[in-house]
Amino acid sequence: MNIFAIMIKVLLIGNGNVASHLATAFSKTNEIALTHIGSRQLDSLPISDVSLIAVSDDAVEVVANQITKNQGLVVHTSGSVNLDAIKMKRNGVFYPLQSFTKGKEIDFTQVPFCLEASNESDLILLKKLVELIHGKSYIISSLQRKKIHLAAVFANNFANHMYKLANDICDQEQIPFEILHPLILETAKKIETLSPKASQTGPAIRKDQKTIEKHLSQLTKAQQELYSLITKSIQSQ
Amino acid sequence: MNIFAIMIKVLLIGNGNVASHLATAFSKTNEIALTHIGSRQLDSLPISDVSLIAVSDDAVEVVANQITKNQGLVVHTSGSVNLDAIKMKRNGVFYPLQSFTKGKEIDFTQVPFCLEASNESDLILLKKLVELIHGKSYIISSLQRKKIHLAAVFANNFANHMYKLANDICDQEQIPFEILHPLILETAKKIETLSPKASQTGPAIRKDQKTIEKHLSQLTKAQQELYSLITKSIQSQ
Repeated sequence: MNIFAIMIKVLLIGNGNVASHLATAFSKTNEIALTHIGSRQLDSLPISDVSLIAVSDDAVEVVANQITKNQGLVVHTSGSVNLDAIKMKRNGVFYPLQSFTKGKEIDFTQVPFCLEASNESDLILLKKLVELIHGKSYIISSLQRKKIHLAAVFANNFANHMYKLANDICDQEQIPFEILHPLILETAKKIETLSPKASQTGPAIRKDQKTIEKHLSQLTKAQQELYSLITKSIQSQ
Repeated sequence: MNIFAIMIKVLLIGNGNVASHLATAFSKTNEIALTHIGSRQLDSLPISDVSLIAVSDDAVEVVANQITKNQGLVVHTSGSVNLDAIKMKRNGVFYPLQSFTKGKEIDFTQVPFCLEASNESDLILLKKLVELIHGKSYIISSLQRKKIHLAAVFANNFANHMYKLANDICDQEQIPFEILHPLILETAKKIETLSPKASQTGPAIRKDQKTIEKHLSQLTKAQQELYSLITKSIQSQ
């Protein structure tokens, strides 16, 4: 360890998944001095360079209001909360765009961080933090972050629901759902080199009406409604 | 090489992606003697243990009708064609459930093969072929295969369309779509250990009406229709 290295004093507030995964990552680097506390221990806070508020969306503003100027740059880690939920001049956002599962270690080299700050020098400080835990930095405005959050609903929640519907169909005929895992993974990987539009295959994009009708006849009414609307959407792309 | 090893004489018919990927895999093992021909070269065929018809769905039956009993067990490689499209007694299906891209090498250890045959001994022969190229065998009936094909439309084509819609939203605000790649990959990997139903997160499953309405207000009419229907479907799961 270089004794002349600058130590960044980080205060991390929160007990959830994001906070605990960040705590693990920060504690692996020698250049960060970490204090990690819960959001109910805000009575005496150490002097910090950066304070990260990693609490639920609704609690960000409440926690931010209890922080004093001794806590340096104050940022939150939320995808959907505006920058101005933090009232101080040195405010920012440090949003890791990944789904964190309790107990499952995160490979931070694969995590994009959406960064925002009112001051240019604070943006550099946030970039430095990301670099220390080997993540990838993106400068993202509050408006862009809001759109990313919306896009993630499609890419994550809605794609996952398509898996759920596929699983239902498999269950009906005692087909082990695992048989679809490799295809699902390949579909997700494919768009890293090809756009989703160019990757599209199947009866909808081929306008294979015969297959579409065969499929519809095998579905429940609710499934038919979804199948038809998504097929229409694919065909108008 | 063991000179007493049994060589399986395989005749592979077809020029498409599935045929060429299978040809590459078969030619890597010493226990298969492969003859690979196009579907327009059917005039003089070698004596074979197994003939694989790896042609487009519509052409399977036509090609099968040109095959004689000297070609042993005759199988097709299609997800949506019935077993009885091949009229001979020794018929079968050898369907690799993966999306094959031209020029992109396939890791066959990750490919599930849906196998079907009229005779038990032929099923053992097909399993042996899968084993030789290190794939994974599943005994799947024609009815089950039809359902898998339908399930794959949801898991592959429709999930990919969700990526497309997310990409559209990113493009609107000049957000690089690659920022969502790690989340998309994580979502696809998550269901290998947790069911899609248990994996679901986001505003729909939380019934977070405030966020849902904020999202709807940012979408086009066609996107709104999809967002609402998929949200309803998630909430009724």
